[in-house]
Amino acid sequence: MFEVAELKSRLDKTSYAAQVPDLRMQLLDLQQMIEPAGIPVVFLVAGLDCAGKGDIIHTLNEWMDPRYMETHAFGRPSEDERERPNHWRYWMAQPRRGRIGIFSVGWYGPPLADRLYSRIDEAVFLAELAHINRLEKAWTNDGAVVVKCWLHLSKKQQRKIIEKTENDPETRWKITETEHEHLKLYDEFLVIAEKALRATNTPEAPWFLVNGYDSHYRRIAVGRHLAQRITARLEGVREQRVKPEPPVSSPGPSILGTVDLKVKLGKKAYRDEKTAFQSKISRLTRLARQQKRSAMLVFEGWDAAGKGGVIRRITPAMDARNYRVIPIQAPSDEERAHHYLWRFWRHLPRDGNVTIYDRSWYGRVLVERVEGFASDEEWHRAYSEINDFEEELTGHGIILLKFWLHISKDEQARRFREREQTRYKRYKITAEDLRNREKWDAYEQAVNDMVTQTSTTYAPWHLIAANDKYHARVEVFRTLCKAYQRALNY
Amino acid sequence: MFEVAELKSRLDKTSYAAQVPDLRMQLLDLQQMIEPAGIPVVFLVAGLDCAGKGDIIHTLNEWMDPRYMETHAFGRPSEDERERPNHWRYWMAQPRRGRIGIFSVGWYGPPLADRLYSRIDEAVFLAELAHINRLEKAWTNDGAVVVKCWLHLSKKQQRKIIEKTENDPETRWKITETEHEHLKLYDEFLVIAEKALRATNTPEAPWFLVNGYDSHYRRIAVGRHLAQRITARLEGVREQRVKPEPPVSSPGPSILGTVDLKVKLGKKAYRDEKTAFQSKISRLTRLARQQKRSAMLVFEGWDAAGKGGVIRRITPAMDARNYRVIPIQAPSDEERAHHYLWRFWRHLPRDGNVTIYDRSWYGRVLVERVEGFASDEEWHRAYSEINDFEEELTGHGIILLKFWLHISKDEQARRFREREQTRYKRYKITAEDLRNREKWDAYEQAVNDMVTQTSTTYAPWHLIAANDKYHARVEVFRTLCKAYQRALNY
Repeated sequence: MFEVAELKSRLDKTSYAAQVPDLRMQLLDLQQMIEPAGIPVVFLVAGLDCAGKGDIIHTLNEWMDPRYMETHAFGRPSEDERERPNHWRYWMAQPRRGRIGIFSVGWYGPPLADRLYSRIDEAVFLAELAHINRLEKAWTNDGAVVVKCWLHLSKKQQRKIIEKTENDPETRWKITETEHEHLKLYDEFLVIAEKALRATNTPEAPWFLVNGYDSHYRRIAVGRHLAQRITARLEGVREQRVKPEPPVSSPGPSILGTVDLKVKLGKKAYRDEKTAFQSKISRLTRLARQQKRSAMLVFEGWDAAGKGGVIRRITPAMDARNYRVIPIQAPSDEERAHHYLWRFWRHLPRDGNVTIYDRSWYGRVLVERVEGFASDEEWHRAYSEINDFEEELTGHGIILLKFWLHISKDEQARRFREREQTRYKRYKITAEDLRNREKWDAYEQAVNDMVTQTSTTYAPWHLIAANDKYHARVEVFRTLCKAYQRALNY
Repeated sequence: MFEVAELKSRLDKTSYAAQVPDLRMQLLDLQQMIEPAGIPVVFLVAGLDCAGKGDIIHTLNEWMDPRYMETHAFGRPSEDERERPNHWRYWMAQPRRGRIGIFSVGWYGPPLADRLYSRIDEAVFLAELAHINRLEKAWTNDGAVVVKCWLHLSKKQQRKIIEKTENDPETRWKITETEHEHLKLYDEFLVIAEKALRATNTPEAPWFLVNGYDSHYRRIAVGRHLAQRITARLEGVREQRVKPEPPVSSPGPSILGTVDLKVKLGKKAYRDEKTAFQSKISRLTRLARQQKRSAMLVFEGWDAAGKGGVIRRITPAMDARNYRVIPIQAPSDEERAHHYLWRFWRHLPRDGNVTIYDRSWYGRVLVERVEGFASDEEWHRAYSEINDFEEELTGHGIILLKFWLHISKDEQARRFREREQTRYKRYKITAEDLRNREKWDAYEQAVNDMVTQTSTTYAPWHLIAANDKYHARVEVFRTLCKAYQRALNY
């Protein structure tokens, strides 16, 4: 696939100088147009050593308005990056809507290098490429333009550039051991690069191959390509993409109907169980901490189902330095300017820590679906995005637990009345709660679909009968301990 | 100073139950009031083992609305925390306006423990306490209420609680080696704790000492104290504090007048120097990277003075993975919700990295002062806050360089005209630039005061004659290399 990209293409100085002003103007104009349109642009440049990756980045920074772009290059992962899933650092670098993020090699760096030096085998390599496709797809689905350029050189061209650069005392410092080593590995690298490019040449994020030998030619070629992709996106010619299948709404009776809400636990039994479990949770979380295993506990459920109460009975058993409770609220403007999963990526626990979510990313397929805050297409595709997200989490070794606290509509009514009668609980009831109540059936359907679509082997939903608070809490304790024991082989 | 706090204070169950509802209501009301008032509340609880720190945090989380508060506890610093100044992690945990941040021990943990185990000597300990005062003062100056509670126990009380907890099979798990060890060190710790409390018992962030033996008593006492402090703040009874002295406006001729704007450098000489310096910068920054020394380069200057141009000639000499250019723009809502230095703390480079600022925190004493975006009091006190900030940076080993690019008013006019005539440079001129130009004298006064107040031995200002771009760039290269050489002993 590199045949054409190996052909030397040149552009003489005069033609180059004649073309630059128009191209710069065009790119500046486009930059001003993506801002109000709220389109994030991801520009990734990869390719061979000495093919001009740095020069392209430098040129774009000079041609365009640097206030609305950000350049990212990634070295070896730092400790805090290693303690999160692989892609965490790329999510953290996601450009906000209306901005351009420029990535030097980006997520292609580690799999290419690891495969070249045989640190990973073919199967892992291909899995990593599939992983990359999911990342890029999540972003393009969210409206991003993903432009990927591969700067290429024939072996002869690469050798020639290295020699030329070394012979010039002004530029000699640019060539290090690495360039020579890579030149030796040219053929091997090409096989690997071709595989990577083929596997990731998707309709939503296609590769643009360009010969990098001549700096004038490559700058104009890449600049034009970038302009063209942004223009196409602005014109609404969105990259062809497969619409996700609408979820099969679970037929027949609701899954929530299978939850036996009559189960109860006496106060005495509750107290005994609570003490025993808290001691167990304390032991297990300390052990997990030692083993650097982190956990994410997700609490969803009807209003007044007792999410906060459960959480407050779990945390006293944990070391305050190791856990964090995150009550999910309206996103900040920084959060709104990114993919909706970005704010959850942002708060991923470091290895050994626990994050407890009082509501979570499932808002997308619950409240946002029912209230119409997310379009049909958005919440439809959220199921697979969430499944991918959770697969990354559990793949990294995170213990992920998802609870739906279920109560009956009558019990909710009773609790609302009770709250109204207790002064310091009154603040917990808002007009929104009452409105939500009116949409009970729509929510029930949404919960049904959510469980159907996102209860996976690696992250199953736990439906907790919560009409009786004592029973609900002990059930959560029990599930939590079981999951920890299994994960820690304890 | 602990005599009173050692006296056992009790509250029987009935009185406690009678007092809780009012207190909860009051705290909830206050929470609702600080939100629109935009007041951040910092609640820090420290004290002896078993005196109920965890219980207090748990109780406040139960009593108040957890959606508007966040609890922070800090373990041993992680790698990414160690690679920033000590206080970085506390700045990152600063509560946003309208929210409550609850801190378990917080910034008092490391100095107390380090002194107890003789990891630091008395002088360092006292310096750390002074450092803490500066942190708390920066926050209270910014409008925060800082409430600090010390939960105390007599030695006898502490021993009794440990025994009681251990004898109860339900709670035995709560006592570990640490508690026994600390009990043995009780007397030594008290001496150190007293010093810490005395040194940090400031008018803006006073300590509240309370006996922690009885859980009912301590909850009510601490809850009331918190309510009282917030109420006082809301009522405008701000803690008495010394207003910073207004800066002595530098008399006589302007410091910028001393810059010789006639210096020039020929194109040929420039080219030679540039190449030599770029090679040198490349070598020095690689060396700094190896030695894990990071750098922050601050570029300030008149509009059109050539800041971007200089930056674009420095970065090609650096490894793209090691530097980041941050163009300073209007803060996001998350940033606006914190102390104005928060967003700069946020982007501090990790050890070995370079951050280049195109405009910086000096906006506070330049544009914000001249345009009236900051009150007189705010920009006045910014000088010492900035000096403290920069002292922390350089104290951590960061190479900090501050450049003011100076051009004459005529040269600026010439450049504006030139920009207007080049299509793709036209976007660089805004109505704001023209307005700024009208306030040239006010800006000149602001620059003068800025240099007077913030040119320190550890972070001096470099005034660069920039009428001639070639000269300016080479001057920056030279200063940069000199500073690196000195810092690296190279």
